[in-house]
Parts: sequence; C-alpha cells; structure tokens
Amino acid sequence: MCRWLAYSGSPLTLHQLIYEPEHSLIDQSLHARLGPHTTNGDGFGVGWYPETGAPVLYRSRQPIWNDRNLRELSPHVRSGLFFAHIRASTGAPVQETNCHPFRHGKWLWMHNGQITGFPLVKREMIVAIDPSLYPSIEGSTDTEVFFFLALSFGLEHDPPAAIERAVGFIERACGERGIPDPVRMSVAVGDGEGVWAFRYSSSGVPPSLFYSTKTETLRAQYPSNMLMQALSDETRLVVSEPLGELEGVWNEVPPSSYGMVGRGQDEIRPFAPRAT
Amino acid sequence: MCRWLAYSGSPLTLHQLIYEPEHSLIDQSLHARLGPHTTNGDGFGVGWYPETGAPVLYRSRQPIWNDRNLRELSPHVRSGLFFAHIRASTGAPVQETNCHPFRHGKWLWMHNGQITGFPLVKREMIVAIDPSLYPSIEGSTDTEVFFFLALSFGLEHDPPAAIERAVGFIERACGERGIPDPVRMSVAVGDGEGVWAFRYSSSGVPPSLFYSTKTETLRAQYPSNMLMQALSDETRLVVSEPLGELEGVWNEVPPSSYGMVGRGQDEIRPFAPRAT
Amino acid sequence: MCRWLAYSGSPLTLHQLIYEPEHSLIDQSLHARLGPHTTNGDGFGVGWYPETGAPVLYRSRQPIWNDRNLRELSPHVRSGLFFAHIRASTGAPVQETNCHPFRHGKWLWMHNGQITGFPLVKREMIVAIDPSLYPSIEGSTDTEVFFFLALSFGLEHDPPAAIERAVGFIERACGERGIPDPVRMSVAVGDGEGVWAFRYSSSGVPPSLFYSTKTETLRAQYPSNMLMQALSDETRLVVSEPLGELEGVWNEVPPSSYGMVGRGQDEIRPFAPRAT
Amino acid sequence: MCRWLAYSGSPLTLHQLIYEPEHSLIDQSLHARLGPHTTNGDGFGVGWYPETGAPVLYRSRQPIWNDRNLRELSPHVRSGLFFAHIRASTGAPVQETNCHPFRHGKWLWMHNGQITGFPLVKREMIVAIDPSLYPSIEGSTDTEVFFFLALSFGLEHDPPAAIERAVGFIERACGERGIPDPVRMSVAVGDGEGVWAFRYSSSGVPPSLFYSTKTETLRAQYPSNMLMQALSDETRLVVSEPLGELEGVWNEVPPSSYGMVGRGQDEIRPFAPRAT
Repeated sequence: MCRWLAYSGSPLTLHQLIYEPEHSLIDQSLHARLGPHTTNGDGFGVGWYPETGAPVLYRSRQPIWNDRNLRELSPHVRSGLFFAHIRASTGAPVQETNCHPFRHGKWLWMHNGQITGFPLVKREMIVAIDPSLYPSIEGSTDTEVFFFLALSFGLEHDPPAAIERAVGFIERACGERGIPDPVRMSVAVGDGEGVWAFRYSSSGVPPSLFYSTKTETLRAQYPSNMLMQALSDETRLVVSEPLGELEGVWNEVPPSSYGMVGRGQDEIRPFAPRAT
Repeated sequence: MCRWLAYSGSPLTLHQLIYEPEHSLIDQSLHARLGPHTTNGDGFGVGWYPETGAPVLYRSRQPIWNDRNLRELSPHVRSGLFFAHIRASTGAPVQETNCHPFRHGKWLWMHNGQITGFPLVKREMIVAIDPSLYPSIEGSTDTEVFFFLALSFGLEHDPPAAIERAVGFIERACGERGIPDPVRMSVAVGDGEGVWAFRYSSSGVPPSLFYSTKTETLRAQYPSNMLMQALSDETRLVVSEPLGELEGVWNEVPPSSYGMVGRGQDEIRPFAPRAT
Repeated sequence: MCRWLAYSGSPLTLHQLIYEPEHSLIDQSLHARLGPHTTNGDGFGVGWYPETGAPVLYRSRQPIWNDRNLRELSPHVRSGLFFAHIRASTGAPVQETNCHPFRHGKWLWMHNGQITGFPLVKREMIVAIDPSLYPSIEGSTDTEVFFFLALSFGLEHDPPAAIERAVGFIERACGERGIPDPVRMSVAVGDGEGVWAFRYSSSGVPPSLFYSTKTETLRAQYPSNMLMQALSDETRLVVSEPLGELEGVWNEVPPSSYGMVGRGQDEIRPFAPRAT
Repeated sequence: MCRWLAYSGSPLTLHQLIYEPEHSLIDQSLHARLGPHTTNGDGFGVGWYPETGAPVLYRSRQPIWNDRNLRELSPHVRSGLFFAHIRASTGAPVQETNCHPFRHGKWLWMHNGQITGFPLVKREMIVAIDPSLYPSIEGSTDTEVFFFLALSFGLEHDPPAAIERAVGFIERACGERGIPDPVRMSVAVGDGEGVWAFRYSSSGVPPSLFYSTKTETLRAQYPSNMLMQALSDETRLVVSEPLGELEGVWNEVPPSSYGMVGRGQDEIRPFAPRAT
C-alpha cells in the first residue's frame, strides 16, 4: 500500500504541493491515516511535465522525509501537472526502478494497491506484453508490469478501455489459478494533458481515493484563502487521502469508477474489467 | 527519539535477538508504541563483541526494515553481548556516522533522547573534550559529542561518575544560556563485560527504559518456553520498550537511576548529575 | 565488464581474501588492468558458504572501496568457499538486485562479460526459462537471466552441459536477429563443493581468466611465505586478473575451455556451445 | 584529490555544462588525467544560483556517473553561475554532508587538495571559528572547516584577504606541530556575482587549475562553433582540468595566484598567506 497525489491546474511549485499542506505527502509518509500501512518509507517518486517535452522523473529509494535534494529543488520545480508517490512495498525490492511513477514516452503511471499472487501470474502478464515494449521494463513491481500490459492493450488510445482489459486479463489469469481477490487499485495515469484516476477492487472495499472540489465553489466558500483565490477553475487534486481537514474540499471517488481531469470535462464514470 | 536494546548473556544470534521477538526492533522501527515517534526509519546500527578483540559495528542510513544484508548476516552473527539501535533523527543528518552505537576502543555507547539546544552548547562541549580524543569524532550528533565528553570525564574508569559529570556539565552550560529541560536520556554503555543503562531527565518524565527479569524466575514461570530454558541465569535484556506482552518479564527502570548487568551483580542505583 | 574471484580451499577470512593481497579486489575496483574498464564502481557482491546451509550474500550498490560495513565484517567472516564480484555496469541499473553473485538454493553464479543485444533477446530467453523458476528472478541483468536459463537447462545436474546449451541458445537467438559476437564471458558457478569456471567468446578474445598454481608447487617455490605454507594442497583461486606479481602463481585459462576445482580433480576441458 | 569546475556567464543548462563536453566532469569522474586519483567516485555536488535568492545545492554520496536523477534534472536546470565538484576522499567519510560545494548564505565554496595532518590541527581551527558560525558546520571534511575559518576571517568582505589569513593560520598551526607541506589547494568561492579561484601549495607544485580564454578570441578562432558564438564576452570556465583538447581555450593559472571572473574585470593576482 502506498499514498499518491496527482495535480492538474494552475502552475505551482513542487514545494507548495508536497511540503506545505497540513497533512502533506511528507506527513503521510510517516503517519498515513487511511490504509493498512502507517509508514510509507520504501522510496518515493515525483514526475512532472515541463513546458515542452517528456515528463521528468525524480525517484529515490530512501524515505521522502529524509531527501535533502528534493527539499532543495522543490521550490524551483514549477509545473501545472504533477504526479507524486510514496511507497510501502508489498514485497518487491526497494530500489529506484521500483519507485512510481513509471514513464513511457509522454505517459506517467502510478498505483496504490496490489495484484495478489503477482509472482504466480507475472510470467503470463509478461508474455502478453507487446515484445517491442518489453525491453523498456526496468524494475520488478506488479505496478510496472500492469502499466506495460495496459500499454499493450491500447492505453495510449483509450486509457479506460485499456485498463479495463488489463484488469480483466489479470482477474482471468488469477482466477484460473484460484487466487482470490486479485486486484486492489487506485491508479493514476496521464499524458501531459489529462489525468485519469481509477478506483477498483475485485472484491471488498478498494483503496481510498479522493478528488478536490471545483475551485469556484472553494473560492466562494473560503474567500480569505489566498491559494484558492489564485487557482484556475479547472485545477484539481486527486489523492489517496485528503491533505487536510478543510470542509467541503474532498470528495470520495466511488468504488468501480474513474474520473478524468484537466481537459475541461469533469465526470465520474463506471469502471468494469473486460475479458480479452 | 529512538529505540534501542542491549543484550548480555548466553550467546545467541542477531537474528534471534532482533527479528524473532513478537514486538521486535524491526517492528518497533515501523510501529513504536512508547514515545513521540512511531517511525524510527532514520538509519540504524548494531554492535557486538566477538570472542576476542574490539566490538564490531554494522551501521546504515537506510531503515532497518529494508536492509537485506542485515537479514542475510543475522543468523550467522553470534555473540553474548549486543547493542542495537534504530534512529529517529531529532535534526542531525541521516548518515552512517550519525548512527548509534558509537565506539571508542572496546566501548560502545547508544542513546535515546536529546540534548535540547545542542547547537548552542555544542562548541562548549567540544572544547571540553580531551584534545587527544577529539579527532575520533566522526559525525554530528549530540549523542556522539555526549559520549566523548563522558570519555573525557573518565568513562573508562567509572562510567556512572563520568556520565554524572557530563550531564552536570551540559545542564550547567544550558542553564547559563537559559535553555530549559536540557537533558532527556536513556543511555547504554558497555566495555564488553558489563552493560550500564541510565534513565534520566532534567525535568519531567524521562524516556522509557525496561530490563528483563532474572531468567531463573522466568524459567519457573514459563516451563515450556524453550528459549528461556536455555538462557543462563545472568542473561539480561535492557530495552526502550518491551519486546512482547509476556507477563512478568519486563520491569521499568525508575527515573534518575541506573543499573549494571553482566558481571554477577544486578542492582539499581540512583543517578544524579555532578558539577565539574 | 567486471572483476571477480572465486576461492576454494583452506578456510580463511574475507579480509585476507579481498583486502590483503597486493592487487586486491579493492585495488582492482579503482585500477583494473586487464579489460576495457579501469573503474569497477557500480556495486559489488560477496557470497560464501557457512559450515552448514545455504550460501550467504552481501551485496551493495555502492563502490566496494567505500563500504565500511564490509570492512568491519570481513575479519569475522570465515569460510573455505567464497565468491566475490565488483561490477562495471554495461547498462542495467545500479541496484542490489543487479549485483553478482546471484543465488538459487545452494548455487552461486557470477559473470564478467556481456550478452550483446541483450534487450533484443531477453524476452526469448525469459520465455525459455522454467515457469517455476521465473518468479525467483529479481533484477534486470543479462547475467541473472543467463543463470536462470542455465538452471532451466539442467545446471544443477551437469553445469558444463547446461551452460553449453544456454550459450548455444543465446547464440542462435542472437544469430537470428543478426547480432554479431553475442557472448563474451568468464563465468563462475558453484554448489558449495566445487567451483566451475568458464572462459569463452563467440568471436575474438574472451575476457581474461586465471587460476592459481597447485599449492604444493608454491610451497616449494616460496618456502618463506607463511600463507602459502598454511594452505591445503587443494586450495585454488580463480580470478579475472592476478592479485599480485608473484612469479609462477597465475596460469591463464585458455579460450573456449573450463575448469573445476574443489573436488580433488583439477583439469581444463574444452567448452563448446550446444544447439538446443 | 577531486575535480571541479566553476562557470560564470551566459545562462546554459546543467546538462550542457557537465554532460556534453568531450572530457566532461562525468568522464573525469571515471578517468581523470591530471592528479593522483584517476577515479573520483566518492560523491559529488552541484550548486547554482537561481534568478533570485540563495544558491541551490544538489549533493549525493554516490558516484556522479550513476545518478539518474541528476541526468533527468540537468536539462531543466538553467543558470549563469554553476559550481560542480566530484570527490575523491582523502579520508573523511563518504556522505552528503562531506560533498562540495559548501554553502553559507549566498556563498558557495569548493576545494581540490588537502590540509595535511588535518586531524591534528582540526581542533585549533574549530576553536578559531566564530562561535556564531560554528553550529552551521555539518560535515567532517578539512574543506568545510577551511571555509568556515575563512568566513571567520572576513570572507564575505574581502575573499582573497580572508583566504590568505586562513591559509596563514593553517600553515602556522601545522608548522608548530612539525607537519610538512600543510596546504595544497585549488579553491573556488563565489557570492552569486563573482567567482574567485585560487591555486596554491605550501611547497611543491599545487593542484592543476585552468581558466577559459576570452570568448571574443574564441569566436574569432572558431567561427563555426555554435556554442561559442552564442556565449557572452564575459563567460568564463575555471576547471581542475580542461574539458577538451580545443587549442587556445585553456590557460593555466600560475601557482600562488588567484583570479576573479564575472564582474567585468579579469586579472590574475598573486596569492600569499598572511600571519594572523
């Protein structure tokens, strides 16, 4: 289990995003509230989109709360589109190549949850990955293999459909091996323009997922909060757990659904695995 | 704030000592119960005495729960005298040279607590350290400077008296600068034969400290516990917090006192800072 | 390109083996003489066999010359069978799971050289690996995949035959893709009793490989060298490059051949890839 | 011994500065040519001045050639004033707090060379440091203590005079203890506007130091080199060893002298230690 946040909207600094909130990602790395792990100290990663070109990654295997370089750089990294993730390993080694977000071309991907029995189905997933994509896999996590499976199923053309196919594939492969409750996930994926966020579990309650309320509502509700006054109407945060207690800010994404932010639309739709 | 344990008694493996207990040091690194920090992920260290020669140190700046080399080595490291420490930094950088235990010749030293206002009194402490010892200081923690101050005040000849003088020195130096509550400490120090453990706070309740009951009592009380049946009468553990819930095993060290284990005697005595 | 050594014989300490020789592995990590890389600073690993049970691994992604824990431990690690490896990456990330030696059950494996065009043939190699072995692969090097391919081809029953099949497989797979000079290797593999060492290149001169002369010869030749007087008749070192300039100590393994040490026999045999 | 470069001039990216030159700092970390160490793998650091505010530091204890985050960030870090340093430790531990450049307020400082017998004179240097500056020392290198000694002697008001006093102090302190050849140095120090570079040795030949020729000369000499055509007249590089073989680019700084670049003047002046 891990914690993550995705930000899309008015440009701000990485420092404003991950250090300044009340219950920031730094605080969550030491004291997460929602989920089975209170400590998320098995590495971390941040990805952002510069003005032009591919997203930039900064990943480390040490706990985020101890990274002095990140703290130094963060006031100078400015973007309108960030992915940030703190890891609590469910088994794969703690190394940079296992830190989220993962990147392929202009796409970023990160995940909280797990594929149960991953060692048993990894080979079948690997074989289903497009051979031209396969050499780009660097680490050993379920998350990265899941990402490349979704890419092989058309992520770059239709993210929700590709992920529905990938989850359908995994559930079928696990089902054939008698593995119960195979997929638990909150996933964020983006291409530099939009961010899609998914919440799903094969059975039971999926990992927590929240998105921030429309900033126009917030501006009316909190007229003296300077940060909110400055953010554009379309600015959105999607998070594993709320960054503070401010009332009216955070809305839970329902189970088995997904949303997309960043391209003017703002809608929650149903998510259902598809057979392949 | 940190967690530590000291072990003196029948030889066992490092694995038995730090991985196998119910609420082991590994578990405490993620979920400490007694103290202000639930996570102790800012490095760790283990020291032990081989059959002959100086104690061996293994220290790392990564969280103990992720150290695969330690896990590999631990079944093969066997000793009758161990120091182990997991760190939650109160400010000094996370680096090997700041990990406890610290070593000088045959002496090991570790500490939970802090010297309030250390940056303000560090220079005065440094100047009071024996110039021939000064070049041996490698890191930047209050704990290491405290150790070398105690060495300068005669630790190798009379540990309790030297530590009483060092604490007296620090309290006086802090007092002159108006720093309140300067010392909070549970300290362990050893020379390969005995282990002395101190619990003290300039004001308020000092950090928690416990020692294990005499093994003869335990053997009678738990006739079916194989590990306890095998340990010698003089085996003792001194810990920041109990390693399990077994009734009758753990006794709190009273504030302002110290004990010594490992040389046949077993007594709690008062601790009081001395003017120098 | 990397440097490695394998030791089989009279028990000695890790310190004697890797720190004390004139041109030690530590020295080779900074100033290798034979091979394209003078610096081998991309992590390292040591494996050894304890008196009973599986081999122990100590691996780290930092340069060996800076590892203070290794230096501390090395006088206390004693064995009659060591594998040690310093890495100069040919592309795969610098992380513990990519450090040699690799282990499977009682087997250790390490490699100097490379599989040219590995990204292009990795998938075909992976698919040929026994599905029950596949989940044990942790890293992303050519060496580890090569090891598991050899295991799938019967390494545990007949090491030379399995490696000949694995190399045959790789050469065929590379040949079909037009990749020239696919395999360059000096490989050591052991099971706790014997060590097999291979030297081969699909074309051109393979990586350097040497073994030490019979100790009885050496004892006669160097009557005043205490270490040599103490070693048993069957003690052997196999190395990427000699550990010193002592005349008569080091013999080159011819290209396309292998030797086995540690079970009383001591013979160089031809090595030839086999079609599968 | 280490390698460093300081850049002052037309803004460029960190990638252009340290990855793109023929004999780049990355190449020098593996194959330095001038000096006693061919490998500079004991950590590194980069400092730069953003458009406003204090300089930013990025330091790591791993070899620069393996830092993937630095490679990712470097095309996005743009400045007209950079300090970069790769370390070959002369004894102090390999940790971030021992990596150059060191910072105090708007000042950056880095060093190649060493203070001979530093452990013997460290205490006397420490005691001479302004007590209000002392708590800012984080590491354990001779370089950082040298920096704070120079700050105590007025570095912020007159850099050459303060460094002359600091070197005089060290030479006197070492002389009293019979330590020969106490100071060997090439030092760079800057405040965000100018960069001062010093080359000195108490005896013998000091560490190598070069500065780049006036860009107007270079533009005339190399009319087709695009990078040179774009750089301003006042752009200068000061380096431990030349970044390439281009004729007419690199000029050696004479022993016992210093230069200042970045404020319109461009002059080499004599450097002589002063008694304090």
